[in-house]
Amino acid sequence: MSEPTNRLVSEGAEEELYKVYTIHEHGEVELVDYLGADSSVARAARTSYQRSEGKTAEHDKKLIMRLWKDRHTSPFEMVNLTFRIRLPIFVMRQHVRHRTASLNEWSFRYTECPDIFYVPAEDDVRSQHSTNKQMSGEPLSAAESQKARKLIDESNRRSFETYKELIEIGVAREQARVVLPVSAYTQIVWSMDIRNLLHYFSLRLAPDAQKEIRDYAKVMAKIVKKGWPMIWEAYESGRS
Amino acid sequence: MSEPTNRLVSEGAEEELYKVYTIHEHGEVELVDYLGADSSVARAARTSYQRSEGKTAEHDKKLIMRLWKDRHTSPFEMVNLTFRIRLPIFVMRQHVRHRTASLNEWSFRYTECPDIFYVPAEDDVRSQHSTNKQMSGEPLSAAESQKARKLIDESNRRSFETYKELIEIGVAREQARVVLPVSAYTQIVWSMDIRNLLHYFSLRLAPDAQKEIRDYAKVMAKIVKKGWPMIWEAYESGRS
Amino acid sequence: MSEPTNRLVSEGAEEELYKVYTIHEHGEVELVDYLGADSSVARAARTSYQRSEGKTAEHDKKLIMRLWKDRHTSPFEMVNLTFRIRLPIFVMRQHVRHRTASLNEWSFRYTECPDIFYVPAEDDVRSQHSTNKQMSGEPLSAAESQKARKLIDESNRRSFETYKELIEIGVAREQARVVLPVSAYTQIVWSMDIRNLLHYFSLRLAPDAQKEIRDYAKVMAKIVKKGWPMIWEAYESGRS
Amino acid sequence: MSEPTNRLVSEGAEEELYKVYTIHEHGEVELVDYLGADSSVARAARTSYQRSEGKTAEHDKKLIMRLWKDRHTSPFEMVNLTFRIRLPIFVMRQHVRHRTASLNEWSFRYTECPDIFYVPAEDDVRSQHSTNKQMSGEPLSAAESQKARKLIDESNRRSFETYKELIEIGVAREQARVVLPVSAYTQIVWSMDIRNLLHYFSLRLAPDAQKEIRDYAKVMAKIVKKGWPMIWEAYESGRS
Repeated sequence: MSEPTNRLVSEGAEEELYKVYTIHEHGEVELVDYLGADSSVARAARTSYQRSEGKTAEHDKKLIMRLWKDRHTSPFEMVNLTFRIRLPIFVMRQHVRHRTASLNEWSFRYTECPDIFYVPAEDDVRSQHSTNKQMSGEPLSAAESQKARKLIDESNRRSFETYKELIEIGVAREQARVVLPVSAYTQIVWSMDIRNLLHYFSLRLAPDAQKEIRDYAKVMAKIVKKGWPMIWEAYESGRS
Repeated sequence: MSEPTNRLVSEGAEEELYKVYTIHEHGEVELVDYLGADSSVARAARTSYQRSEGKTAEHDKKLIMRLWKDRHTSPFEMVNLTFRIRLPIFVMRQHVRHRTASLNEWSFRYTECPDIFYVPAEDDVRSQHSTNKQMSGEPLSAAESQKARKLIDESNRRSFETYKELIEIGVAREQARVVLPVSAYTQIVWSMDIRNLLHYFSLRLAPDAQKEIRDYAKVMAKIVKKGWPMIWEAYESGRS
Repeated sequence: MSEPTNRLVSEGAEEELYKVYTIHEHGEVELVDYLGADSSVARAARTSYQRSEGKTAEHDKKLIMRLWKDRHTSPFEMVNLTFRIRLPIFVMRQHVRHRTASLNEWSFRYTECPDIFYVPAEDDVRSQHSTNKQMSGEPLSAAESQKARKLIDESNRRSFETYKELIEIGVAREQARVVLPVSAYTQIVWSMDIRNLLHYFSLRLAPDAQKEIRDYAKVMAKIVKKGWPMIWEAYESGRS
Repeated sequence: MSEPTNRLVSEGAEEELYKVYTIHEHGEVELVDYLGADSSVARAARTSYQRSEGKTAEHDKKLIMRLWKDRHTSPFEMVNLTFRIRLPIFVMRQHVRHRTASLNEWSFRYTECPDIFYVPAEDDVRSQHSTNKQMSGEPLSAAESQKARKLIDESNRRSFETYKELIEIGVAREQARVVLPVSAYTQIVWSMDIRNLLHYFSLRLAPDAQKEIRDYAKVMAKIVKKGWPMIWEAYESGRS
């Protein structure tokens, strides 16, 4: 299916394209398009895209490390990743706060909501954190966890049944959806330049981020690491 | 409670400050702060904020009308409105797409969700539009409407009960919330410059916007009209 | 030099890549990278990047036309063009106002300014517009035009000589540059999603834009037309 | 001239309003409008603007410090400063790169350029830095400095004379301006929320920023310190 291109190609990114990563039971992350390779950052910093300037990968890497260290981050905007992501509405509500992304989402005004909902895994039902008011703490006991999962699962099902009933009565999709829980899955195409994606990581990979969104960020970080290893190394070397 | 200021003051906006408008049963819109008056646009266009240049309100108005007509919209960014808004999550999900706004929202990781949910009014349960796939059409019959409202109300209540039960078991707020329906109310502080607010109006007051968000946009438009009558007149004179 | 890619490829864009267009005497525009083809817009609108959904180019085109007409412009952000542009500082000062672009520029703190300056062509020295205060009007007579060009050319040269002299005395580049005229050429890498690029066109191809920047916009528009013919057709069909 | 307002007022900011600070020989910075006080940040973080919640200034300060430390910076967008700034084009070209600002500028298409230009002060003509390619280093000797200043001053004057001559011949302002040096002064109205203004400070107050722009940033920082002392203290306590 591949076609020839004269653009810069990232071999690592090519291998990641269209690979569907599963997150939790129903979540998905898939790299569906990208712009630029590690060397795009170096070329932009040199304000030059000429291929034969005698600059080696080693030159590029040094430059990328220095740009990051010196907080000259604008060249990092020349690389872009586009993901298809299936995620629960409560995770989506955090994603959408990153205003530099471009975003398209399923509309439940337009199509019916599918019957898939988030339920935490048995070993991942967490208690309220004892001191940090906004975080979760230790996992609940197996018994509590099972009880909680059952409650969540049944609530999801009942809400969905009501949703279907409303549709059958003839209620418009845009109104019927109001009963859907934020555990319902939606799907987005989400495109962000890598400078802002790294900023997203710095917030969403942090320990105070909710685990459910961290799980998404981790997969995307893994893809960045494979496709843009020099940029990732710069990022890991310290916060810009 | 008023204090003296040397800033430009909009008399109309002063009257609107802290006035709480109710939308549907539980929704609220309140202007909580603002920056600039009609004449701020004219002053910015003249790149001058000197008070005594012999420019009258009539000069300002002419200039504002011409700027809008000629699509010189950057001076309109010098006026800013900050609202407190209580709105259901499904309306919030449309609001948040306007990326030029500044936004703070209740976090249900941090505080418990209150027991208020959106249920459409009896004369406002709408059928699916017959031809436009993303819109609603005519109201349902009284009988259907009552049935739909009952279904929605009961679903909201049941979901909320499950939510409370999960909290009692000890599930962290950030996980318990997954069963909450998008009819649940959240609250935001939302700040936007008037250029982008007018763009928001052009999309959200349009006939193809969902009625529930249009009801919010209408109230904000009314406030703009009172506080910034020249800008509103320019906006109404035709799309920039 | 081409390599295989699994990404969407625009054949028209591939032909435009690295083609250097000359503008005026010293200006240049070159497409150096791009993201996405016409069908990327349709795929984003469907929130799906699956290749085999049985959607033909005809389906895509219809959808693109409708999205534009209905002002659903977010899917157009999934296409991105990156240009290398050599342009005089006075044109750059207008370019940079488009805040949604990513931008890297030569720094005359870092490198010396090259000896190239804008001088209008003989048939393009324009008089002040008789009624519109911000525009130029008819061309000057041949005699006046020659005189003006001579004045501009000599002024450019003298300023550059002073610049070189300052450097020789040992003045830092960042200070020596203050004598450089805005006719001096700078170079940028400029990346913008196509939605915002079309907005740039709507302002910079307009009759009230300065001819010198319009000449740049025209070349970029030509490239868009070749690489993204459906999007261009939608744009031409009427303002979104 | 003051009028009553029901908005939050910053006493420190009121004292700064319309105070014109001079920078170098011809530069100016003047706070011409503002939105919000220290407590606006706390109120936005609480998603509440109610005046009587029993929260004291001490509560607000603690909250502001914690928000900054925890990188919860969105509430800081609820405060806004609008400046009138007169600055040379080469400083403007750095200012304009801060894309979150709203900006209006004199247009030399519309009005004639005034006869004021930047010339470094006698003790501020700097040599090229010996190791850092983009920075200046030690001041030049008095003799070199005098020579450099004379060269710059004469070059400015000659360029301006040519500019006037071109205007007299009848060349349109938009073309005549091409001979103007980047030492020419322009004027802007520049509005930015304080979160992004603090980010601007972190870049433009840094030792690697050009001294000429640092001089502008310093004055604005002084104004922020007076008008928003808690926010300033949070900023100084460490980078967010």
